[in-house]
Amino acid sequence: MAANSMDRALRERAAAVIPGGMYGHQSTGLLPDDYPQFFARGSGAYLWDADGNRTLDLMCAYGPNLFGYADAEIDAAYVARMKAGDCLTGPTALMVELAEAFVAMISHADWAMVCKNGTDATTMALTTARAHTKKKTVVLAKGAYHGAAPWCTPRPSGVTAEDRANQVYCAYNDIESLEAAVAKAGGDLAAIFAAPFKHDAFVDQAAPDPAYARRARQLCDETGALLVVDDVRAGFRVARDCSWSAVGVEPDLSTWGKCIANGHPISALLGSDKARAAAASIYVTGSFWYASAVMAAALVTLKRVRESDYLEHIEGLGERLRRGLHERAAAAGFSLRQTGPVTMPLFLFDEDKDLRRGFFWSAEMLKRGVYVHPWHNMFMCAAMTEADIDGALDAAEGAFAALKAAEPSLEPVAKLKAVFG
Amino acid sequence: MAANSMDRALRERAAAVIPGGMYGHQSTGLLPDDYPQFFARGSGAYLWDADGNRTLDLMCAYGPNLFGYADAEIDAAYVARMKAGDCLTGPTALMVELAEAFVAMISHADWAMVCKNGTDATTMALTTARAHTKKKTVVLAKGAYHGAAPWCTPRPSGVTAEDRANQVYCAYNDIESLEAAVAKAGGDLAAIFAAPFKHDAFVDQAAPDPAYARRARQLCDETGALLVVDDVRAGFRVARDCSWSAVGVEPDLSTWGKCIANGHPISALLGSDKARAAAASIYVTGSFWYASAVMAAALVTLKRVRESDYLEHIEGLGERLRRGLHERAAAAGFSLRQTGPVTMPLFLFDEDKDLRRGFFWSAEMLKRGVYVHPWHNMFMCAAMTEADIDGALDAAEGAFAALKAAEPSLEPVAKLKAVFG
Repeated sequence: MAANSMDRALRERAAAVIPGGMYGHQSTGLLPDDYPQFFARGSGAYLWDADGNRTLDLMCAYGPNLFGYADAEIDAAYVARMKAGDCLTGPTALMVELAEAFVAMISHADWAMVCKNGTDATTMALTTARAHTKKKTVVLAKGAYHGAAPWCTPRPSGVTAEDRANQVYCAYNDIESLEAAVAKAGGDLAAIFAAPFKHDAFVDQAAPDPAYARRARQLCDETGALLVVDDVRAGFRVARDCSWSAVGVEPDLSTWGKCIANGHPISALLGSDKARAAAASIYVTGSFWYASAVMAAALVTLKRVRESDYLEHIEGLGERLRRGLHERAAAAGFSLRQTGPVTMPLFLFDEDKDLRRGFFWSAEMLKRGVYVHPWHNMFMCAAMTEADIDGALDAAEGAFAALKAAEPSLEPVAKLKAVFG
Repeated sequence: MAANSMDRALRERAAAVIPGGMYGHQSTGLLPDDYPQFFARGSGAYLWDADGNRTLDLMCAYGPNLFGYADAEIDAAYVARMKAGDCLTGPTALMVELAEAFVAMISHADWAMVCKNGTDATTMALTTARAHTKKKTVVLAKGAYHGAAPWCTPRPSGVTAEDRANQVYCAYNDIESLEAAVAKAGGDLAAIFAAPFKHDAFVDQAAPDPAYARRARQLCDETGALLVVDDVRAGFRVARDCSWSAVGVEPDLSTWGKCIANGHPISALLGSDKARAAAASIYVTGSFWYASAVMAAALVTLKRVRESDYLEHIEGLGERLRRGLHERAAAAGFSLRQTGPVTMPLFLFDEDKDLRRGFFWSAEMLKRGVYVHPWHNMFMCAAMTEADIDGALDAAEGAFAALKAAEPSLEPVAKLKAVFG
């Protein structure tokens, strides 16, 4: 217990003053019991938990960490601007520079609006589409995550039927299902929302079918609805442009967040000229949206996205990890399904419907100093090295061996019963 | 034009890449034409606009600036924590410490949840109340601002009827109107929302009638609904506790933001034990909500709220300003209505229904180095001094004289026609 005694103590204190002890996507409620809830620090690709245990972090803060925790150059830009005043009575020139930088980098974008949460950006996209079309219905893919406001949060507690009105669901990558959803919207289609690839929790990830993406574009063009690509999670880990540039489809609106200032808090809605008047007509704001320090950090981050080989670097590392894991899994007699872009991988074992193998293996990886997630896509960051990946593969070899030994006696995971029945 | 040539140039660039050139509460769209849209820096109680003009800032970033822009101690806490890693794969001990600090300071609070925008906190309050009661209807005061999500944004563009379903409006401080609204909710009341005082735009502010506050508490107790005090704007400028502690009424939920980390981006929902299970049942989250640097800044800010005489200091300055303005207005033959707490004042001229006098006078104040707002409450900060206030009063004397001279020829303000018809 010494290995996590501080974490346990913090959990006890948290249980007294935070509902449920922790909430949201960083709650360890559905992770193996020995996963730490509290961390002490992060540097580059590494995390230290509250008890001082060091791990290579394949979650990257669920996305925000693109260039390494506590990146010196990006943080210096933040601090320099903070010293001149951060949240003022109006924006600074940096807001204009940041919007110009986005417009120059993202092919479909003619304008940008900054905000704070990914959910702010997706909600603004929805509102803009409704203002543009004067229609209400939005088509979404079943199971896709677009934020945690009442209209999109994945858990129904406290949410009303009216919060979820005017929504029609389709199956991602299924053209017939998409067409049926659009037909169901009748003459009332305001928007089609699309994740850049299928990155739902608990199931295999899937690349976008180019024909599906093109059909979504076509249906929007035919009906006057707006096409929204929600790049909050995947942005800049698939392309230096909107992620659907890879399949040759331009949306009208795209939503960004997480890594665009390398973990400093900012998100954005980008749009084409078609949607500009509607975007100007909605009233959205936040106390801290126009603060300048995070914009200075974003400008350095975007410059590095444009000018460095970070993308090729994390793609190379992701391929090395995928190949190496495949070999080591096979050598140990396991079949591991590795899905999603190599920069945003998910590992699921074959014949593991209730995730008991994945849970056990993930916990064994953690014991060996590698933080992997058993059911949510992970993220590569540019601070990782080939040596880090090779170390993770050594850890995997040990974790596969431990799983092999334990497998006959593995029980279902109690805390996952609510998910898998 | 030299006095604002940089601002004009930035506005032109912004018009190309930001819808409407600027959006949200910091847009100068409804301010006098010579108000700067873009700023260069802030320090203490002062702002420098993009052209280098220095002004005493009575807006304080619309609230976030409580202890002065770029406060050295608060910012140092932010930076020290940032260097150890800010947004990680989970929270740090600071999240527990911050929740503990809130619970220790705010009488009604047994728990805390942090978020980023004030709107996050108010939306979480609404969802928590609906989860707690399994009912839908919320009673709100007409004209009160509770954020900019579709359910509460003051502008209808892009908002659907369903977004505003299950809402009943009453008049603030009007007990009969409140009772009628609750009656209209029938058996479906989930929450009564209340601003801590009436701080609506364009009209006189009003202190809460203690009888109104008590009746709201009583109606919630009778129906099982939750009472929500939205302290995002007024928090810590009226009391070191929830603002309704001044009238002896405890809410079940209170929402906080703006100044709780002196302008660093964080907001919070605080609640009583009664609402704890419901708060734990809702799914709300954000990419940056658990980042630690802002929590370090918040802990220093809260300590200063507890331990310094900042509140008495800004109350003294606010009284000095109110008294001095009254005298100077009277001497010049004007009657100025100064409403709201002295720490959050609003100035409206008598016989100025279309605000032409207020607009002219505000612009004259700005010319003399004092940034005042013609129709939104202002904010005092602890970095202000008696000399700053005396300087503002000198400016006011000049501005009243200029108004006196210009008054016979003042025209209606074109940009306010949409507001006043």
